[in-house]
Amino acid sequence: MITATREYKVVGTRPIRHDGADKVTGRAVYGADLNLPGMLYGKVLRSPHAHARIKSVDTSRAEAHPDCRAAATCADLAPSDPVGPVAVLGQMPRDNVLARDKAMYGGHAVAAVAASSAHAAEEILSLIEVEYEPLPAYTNIEDAMAEDAVSIHDTWTDNPDLPGGVNVAAQEHYRFGDPEAGFEEADRVFEREYRTKTVHQGYIEPQNATAWWSPDGRLTVWCSSQGHFGVRDNTARILGIPVSQVKVVPLEIGGGFGGKIPPYLEPVAAVLSKKSGQPVKMVMDRAEVLQATGPTSGSLVRLKIGVTNEGRITAAHCLMALEAGAFPGAPLAGAASAVFSPYLIENVQINGYDVVSNKPRTQAYRAPGAPIVMYCTETLMDEIAQALGIDSAELRLLNVARQGDRRADGVMNGRIGAEETMRAAREHPHFSAPLEQVEGRLRGRGWSMGFCRNNTGPACVVANVLDNGSVSLVEGSVDIGGTRTAIAQQFAEVLGIPVEDVNPTIGDTDTIGYTSVTGGSGVAFKSGWAAHEAAMDVMQQLTVRASLVWDTDPDDIEYVDGALRHKSDTELSMSFKEIAALLPETGGPVVGRANMNPGGSGGSYAANIVDVEVDPDTGKVDILRYTAFQDAGFAIHPSYVEGQIQGGAAQGIGWALNEEYYMGDDGSMMNTSLLDYRMPTSLDLPMIEAVIVEVGNPGHPFGVRGVGEANIAPPLAAIANAIHDAAGVRLRSLPMNPQSVAAAIAEADAK
Amino acid sequence: MITATREYKVVGTRPIRHDGADKVTGRAVYGADLNLPGMLYGKVLRSPHAHARIKSVDTSRAEAHPDCRAAATCADLAPSDPVGPVAVLGQMPRDNVLARDKAMYGGHAVAAVAASSAHAAEEILSLIEVEYEPLPAYTNIEDAMAEDAVSIHDTWTDNPDLPGGVNVAAQEHYRFGDPEAGFEEADRVFEREYRTKTVHQGYIEPQNATAWWSPDGRLTVWCSSQGHFGVRDNTARILGIPVSQVKVVPLEIGGGFGGKIPPYLEPVAAVLSKKSGQPVKMVMDRAEVLQATGPTSGSLVRLKIGVTNEGRITAAHCLMALEAGAFPGAPLAGAASAVFSPYLIENVQINGYDVVSNKPRTQAYRAPGAPIVMYCTETLMDEIAQALGIDSAELRLLNVARQGDRRADGVMNGRIGAEETMRAAREHPHFSAPLEQVEGRLRGRGWSMGFCRNNTGPACVVANVLDNGSVSLVEGSVDIGGTRTAIAQQFAEVLGIPVEDVNPTIGDTDTIGYTSVTGGSGVAFKSGWAAHEAAMDVMQQLTVRASLVWDTDPDDIEYVDGALRHKSDTELSMSFKEIAALLPETGGPVVGRANMNPGGSGGSYAANIVDVEVDPDTGKVDILRYTAFQDAGFAIHPSYVEGQIQGGAAQGIGWALNEEYYMGDDGSMMNTSLLDYRMPTSLDLPMIEAVIVEVGNPGHPFGVRGVGEANIAPPLAAIANAIHDAAGVRLRSLPMNPQSVAAAIAEADAK
Repeated sequence: MITATREYKVVGTRPIRHDGADKVTGRAVYGADLNLPGMLYGKVLRSPHAHARIKSVDTSRAEAHPDCRAAATCADLAPSDPVGPVAVLGQMPRDNVLARDKAMYGGHAVAAVAASSAHAAEEILSLIEVEYEPLPAYTNIEDAMAEDAVSIHDTWTDNPDLPGGVNVAAQEHYRFGDPEAGFEEADRVFEREYRTKTVHQGYIEPQNATAWWSPDGRLTVWCSSQGHFGVRDNTARILGIPVSQVKVVPLEIGGGFGGKIPPYLEPVAAVLSKKSGQPVKMVMDRAEVLQATGPTSGSLVRLKIGVTNEGRITAAHCLMALEAGAFPGAPLAGAASAVFSPYLIENVQINGYDVVSNKPRTQAYRAPGAPIVMYCTETLMDEIAQALGIDSAELRLLNVARQGDRRADGVMNGRIGAEETMRAAREHPHFSAPLEQVEGRLRGRGWSMGFCRNNTGPACVVANVLDNGSVSLVEGSVDIGGTRTAIAQQFAEVLGIPVEDVNPTIGDTDTIGYTSVTGGSGVAFKSGWAAHEAAMDVMQQLTVRASLVWDTDPDDIEYVDGALRHKSDTELSMSFKEIAALLPETGGPVVGRANMNPGGSGGSYAANIVDVEVDPDTGKVDILRYTAFQDAGFAIHPSYVEGQIQGGAAQGIGWALNEEYYMGDDGSMMNTSLLDYRMPTSLDLPMIEAVIVEVGNPGHPFGVRGVGEANIAPPLAAIANAIHDAAGVRLRSLPMNPQSVAAAIAEADAK
Repeated sequence: MITATREYKVVGTRPIRHDGADKVTGRAVYGADLNLPGMLYGKVLRSPHAHARIKSVDTSRAEAHPDCRAAATCADLAPSDPVGPVAVLGQMPRDNVLARDKAMYGGHAVAAVAASSAHAAEEILSLIEVEYEPLPAYTNIEDAMAEDAVSIHDTWTDNPDLPGGVNVAAQEHYRFGDPEAGFEEADRVFEREYRTKTVHQGYIEPQNATAWWSPDGRLTVWCSSQGHFGVRDNTARILGIPVSQVKVVPLEIGGGFGGKIPPYLEPVAAVLSKKSGQPVKMVMDRAEVLQATGPTSGSLVRLKIGVTNEGRITAAHCLMALEAGAFPGAPLAGAASAVFSPYLIENVQINGYDVVSNKPRTQAYRAPGAPIVMYCTETLMDEIAQALGIDSAELRLLNVARQGDRRADGVMNGRIGAEETMRAAREHPHFSAPLEQVEGRLRGRGWSMGFCRNNTGPACVVANVLDNGSVSLVEGSVDIGGTRTAIAQQFAEVLGIPVEDVNPTIGDTDTIGYTSVTGGSGVAFKSGWAAHEAAMDVMQQLTVRASLVWDTDPDDIEYVDGALRHKSDTELSMSFKEIAALLPETGGPVVGRANMNPGGSGGSYAANIVDVEVDPDTGKVDILRYTAFQDAGFAIHPSYVEGQIQGGAAQGIGWALNEEYYMGDDGSMMNTSLLDYRMPTSLDLPMIEAVIVEVGNPGHPFGVRGVGEANIAPPLAAIANAIHDAAGVRLRSLPMNPQSVAAAIAEADAK
């Protein structure tokens, strides 16, 4: 770990997380644990067709069932225009919550009922009569973009100015410098095509929501989400009621990775509660999660890079078609920010296509878009190094992006850690350790860079100082990965108190000010900064209180090392605990608050080195050794940063080697369980060594960069490069599962 | 209603309460509604003896029961010194939660168990073996103060300096002027003795508590209380853990009136949860509530007033012995503040005795102490007026207390409304309306003054401004009587927005800053003031945001009538909603906060006029007409003030006519149900006309005085005076139930 120079006492340490005991003993309350008086259970009827016109939905037989308390269809949601080709950031299309005229993918919600038990509700679903007219389904990019393809959205018309056809929704194009001249200038031009499949975040906890609609129109929703304010805003819009009538209470969340930002069940549970007058709980099963929530895009990428014989990149072009699923919203911007992010490329062009098809609508997944395109770039960089006979680290360092350079999506780099992260990898013992070969197996090493631009947004923190010198810290950011404590550490550091004396909780939407989603690796940055400001607010108020006690001017007092001191009378000093004990007599409690929307979140670079062993007969790839590097800016809680690095690597390994939505001929997903949707388990992975790089972010008081995402970008190319190193085959399609690898080896052997 | 002169738009109006729909439809969640995963149910074993030494408690047979998950006795609570004779304000004695060496009253908690159901827990209680050695029990003041009485507290020794004997705990004595000389100066001296019985607040919702103790030592408690911070502090102390490890979540409360301030079940549920590792819910039944929570004192009062023939009071003396129950804490200070409060008395002495006996430990009950002593004073004032041949209103007005006068407990009166309230009563049509007599019935009219000194304390409010111009207002005060809305009104008034745009909620102890109890009629005063300050904080921040939008200095901007205005450029104006919509672009959300401990709560005076009809044969008293007056300072929500006035009158009527703890010879309470403990129902009461008097409190931004309590003080004497007017008998002992009245009439007839 490369440490920052400034000495801190709380940030940078590894305290036990405040919610640790609750989490390991089962006391933590997740959405599915909730129980309310008179609570009903809701279940959703889902389309068996990947694409079908819904000619009618008749719930009358279901509603006649003695245990049916309510039924819901799209007619119960607010009116809404048909979904257009441009996704609105943060908005869940109403028609994805309950289908209106068409079922757009297998598993698309069509209707729902509430009953006294989940089993009864499931039984009652069978009484709903839906008349479908099945339609041809597109479940891959080639079909959706074929010249004779028909638009899957009735209202979309072909636009001759937009290439790609009727199923291309939004497009994003970036062009800087003179790409044509750049390619002219190149000694060699490399052009390759890559494919990746739809994959799911794979959070363990299924989506859930409980809603209770009051007769006066106020709605309370309990759920496990990455952002209760976003759930509130979306639910209110979909139901057509003001946000101020909706209160969302965040319960603990069992993983999200981007997939738990939008609401699925919340508006449905609300409708069922409104109709029944009782609270309604809904919990998805695993098949529903895989079929009907938001995985990330499958893709088709064409990449072209021109280089001089010395390895300098003269131009680059990326054509990326990303699957949006049924409604637009593929992560084009994230992909564009990341695709060439480790490098300075003067002449560059990116053409991005958001392609709809008959699959579940994609949502964010850890560094949205970045793993897909960096898999391509970093595989091609490896190929170029080999072709030019240049060491791959030298090639990368020759072209490395630095502060002041322009990224391919037009953003000017601030202080970034691309070079430091590259060098940390190259100088790590793993990079140059001998790789012992074993008879009958093929072993190889690969590496790759990764990047996430990261994000920020509004964040609020309120601090209540207790007389005993402890502090209740109310945070607006949902805690997924330990941010309760990472925020509390930043608060404690400012006031010079132990983080154990800070008691962090997450406020509901009525309790704490608007705080943006726990996503974009933003929480330790934005809510940590808000905690810093709230602590400053507390400090200022304590200074005034001390001035009353000492009968002096607040300007005569300074707060240093956890204590108030009179600047000139050195005998006057009070610790935080001492002044806290005096609050009742000096005016009552002290409440600190911060409400802000800080800029300067700063991107994070990552690198992975991986050793693999390939079974030449079966094509199975085993991970032998794995080292993951990431620039954290400053690691507030190094254990959490390491955990994020390890988690991102694990998910990237699954994406690289095994995970995919396996679609049947009828357009339905065939592998809707975690037995068949094959995520890596602990048995599939070695210990992942995490190395924290710290290139302080000047845009944050402690230099924090978000660390939740960049780590998932490198594994795909690192493993592809390692397989090539081991077996001499270059896989340009994911997943690199046994049959693919075996086929590639057989094909190479046949040549 | 006598209105304040200043024009307001929100305060002083009668909006629908924010929690109204929830309350009338059953959606509001009270303590007994809570349900947690794996929750157990706890029950308490209670002493059958009013006084007994506990020689042993053996829970082993109970614990061997297959469904017993945990058992608790006093040994599970923190060590504590024996209870001394001086009560510590706000502290519940540990030994009252679970008895240690002695059972001090019938129903005293001795042990508890948790099981899978409340029925199983009750069954298992029978397996606990307790060896008692019964002791003589004192259940009235005479016995407890008898010369040969034995101290019921083993560690208390007789103090020859303290009159009253071994069972007198704390004493309070007040003496101003020269009482002896004052009585010398009097033409007439009136001396009488009065008795009142122990009565209960009679809240409908029984005490309840659910606790969940985490393996890391953190404890969460859900309960219905008047002050979750006080419950937290007491529970932490009784368990011997830091307050920062305890989080108390306030659920809705079904009445408290002072009786729901201290914890009873909370520490017990916590111990059972710690031992079982599961959440434990406990709910009292009605008999437990009456036998083992905190009613108010029975009393013996000797009152002596000297007057001139013209009616001027020259001296007064009050000896008041108030029952504390098993542990000290009778409301001496409240009684001393109230006893002579409507009058200026230069020469005055009060001797107060806090007397322990074998009854449940008393707690606060609406204007603690005031109804008891004002019953005496205001009955005697009626008697004096009659004796002197002076109109009772003239007598009162002649002696009325005014600003700058000294109250009998030494407090200097600020701006008070004693005279205005008196005059409002005298000038009301009811005062002089003809009273129609009916054959065979005795009808009469009486009136009385009342008073409560009111209280204040720390209060916190946090305001979160939503982009749509609504505000989430987090309050620290538990809402019993509609204070959510009364606080929200004061917030809305400052910002010039509709109160419907404010969404008030109550924060738990981790969420909001320390806020003192909902008692002492303090909430509309202190938390209302905090809301005023929080609104000012929001206003200041909005002014800064507007300065960014208009590119000007904040000092150039003023906030008037719900809008920001540029002081010189009159074209620049933004409503609250308009600036709220701009928050995301101008720096993010705005959070306002106030943390304060305001002084100047200001006492409230009340008056009642009542017409009664006495059945001369049965002695039954019917209320024919009732008018109640009270000085609200300024009525934030007049409907709530009227409701408080009506509620206080109803409780006072019950106290006057029927309610009492009827103690059997064995020292146990004989009437432990609401059938036998006879509170007035709607059938017993006429419409109570409420008249609001407004003598603005200069110590509050809107002039608020607390209105929750003074209203219970006048009914006792007003009814006694009315009975005298009707039947010619003067009852100096409560309750004035049919047998007492009939006996008094028979006695008078016999003379």
